[in-house]
Amino acid sequence: MSGRLAVIGLGPGDARYLTPEADAALSGAQALYGYGPYLDRVAARAGQSRHPSDNREEGARAAAALRHAAQGANVAVVSGGDPGVFAMAAAICEEIEAGPEAWRTLDVIFVPGITAMLAVAARIGAPLGHDFCALSLSDNLKPWELVERRLDAAAGAGFVIALYNPVSRARPWQFGNAIERLRQHLPQATPVVFGRAVGRPDERVTVTTLAQADAAPADMATLVIVGTRETRVIARPGRAPLVYTPRTAVEVSA
Amino acid sequence: MSGRLAVIGLGPGDARYLTPEADAALSGAQALYGYGPYLDRVAARAGQSRHPSDNREEGARAAAALRHAAQGANVAVVSGGDPGVFAMAAAICEEIEAGPEAWRTLDVIFVPGITAMLAVAARIGAPLGHDFCALSLSDNLKPWELVERRLDAAAGAGFVIALYNPVSRARPWQFGNAIERLRQHLPQATPVVFGRAVGRPDERVTVTTLAQADAAPADMATLVIVGTRETRVIARPGRAPLVYTPRTAVEVSA
Repeated sequence: MSGRLAVIGLGPGDARYLTPEADAALSGAQALYGYGPYLDRVAARAGQSRHPSDNREEGARAAAALRHAAQGANVAVVSGGDPGVFAMAAAICEEIEAGPEAWRTLDVIFVPGITAMLAVAARIGAPLGHDFCALSLSDNLKPWELVERRLDAAAGAGFVIALYNPVSRARPWQFGNAIERLRQHLPQATPVVFGRAVGRPDERVTVTTLAQADAAPADMATLVIVGTRETRVIARPGRAPLVYTPRTAVEVSA
Repeated sequence: MSGRLAVIGLGPGDARYLTPEADAALSGAQALYGYGPYLDRVAARAGQSRHPSDNREEGARAAAALRHAAQGANVAVVSGGDPGVFAMAAAICEEIEAGPEAWRTLDVIFVPGITAMLAVAARIGAPLGHDFCALSLSDNLKPWELVERRLDAAAGAGFVIALYNPVSRARPWQFGNAIERLRQHLPQATPVVFGRAVGRPDERVTVTTLAQADAAPADMATLVIVGTRETRVIARPGRAPLVYTPRTAVEVSA
């Protein structure tokens, strides 16, 4: 018997974002692995075992799931959003490369999902309407100097910037530092979008400016989108504003 | 009667990627607007009118859909992938801002979808496993010098680069020029992934190197992912290789 591992993106949290492909892969699994709160989003099915683990245990979780699949089981690892964006897919590949040769012959599939920046952008208009980048502010796995260098490069070249993992209890100052750094490149009025818990009951999406951004509440469930010099806000009577980045860019030098 | 406009992401092309939210929004629409080949992917429903238009007519299509919704209809505009990523959402916002005041009071929703880079990445492993950017190589709406500047910034700072719209009949040389430029920043062995028509019957995903990349076939249906110095390829006996970018980055200077 040969096992199988599916690395599945659940999207932002509500079933209306779960693709049919992800739903089918969840249905077929005999064992589910994942960060506890993500596993809690998956409907219970008879005969499925559940193996929750803590955040920041991606490597150990990936290895446990691979061991289980190598025993012949149909195993699923779940991620919030998309598994390939700051989530479990890279951890699985790391363990396959470092692990026993047998893991390379396993049937492994990756099932994409709606990642947070797409869900937040859709709630507010089209802030990612032009060239953009996705950058994790976590310096657990990279030096902070590299984050700064990427912020400089992205803002200097006119990319919209989606900031993942802006704040955690263990990383209290990084987000303020990043915003301060971006102010050296971008006008104070640059639109900034905060999207928290999008697709869940406590969803909250707000628009502010780069001048005000570090005073806004952000946490691990928040995705922040920092616009460019061209990003615009459309006020709408009786409705939330729209934020978008036009498809046309004329400026070459910042 | 007040109309409504839904701007809907169909994902990469197959129904297994269509979210329940997108499916529901399509079901409720009285009129569908979109680029002809995207409209052809949507199942026919009784009583729905269809308004296909050509590529590169995004502004006119957006305005027509807004006019129709302003007459009180429930209108849907469809995009391949995600509407907020090089697709219709920005065009809709542009027309709302430029159009009559009444368009600002319309009920407009954006429904996210699986964008091409997530689908291609999922087919091959986790090439977007670390910080990355999405860059359109079309210079229809921006000067080529700006594309070059962004390629320099992204590769120099160690972002994985997803290239949308690499080639078209009207833009034959831009992709080769971009690859040549990236070779000034990255090693010749840097992994490059070509994903064509992912999620469709003629899907083809291949891995090459930066040294060989401009010889690979690319067209408007192709999404190209250029790795970083850290991106790795795992050979697998009897299976396609996995390509991934590790979660850990140590290097600050390129």
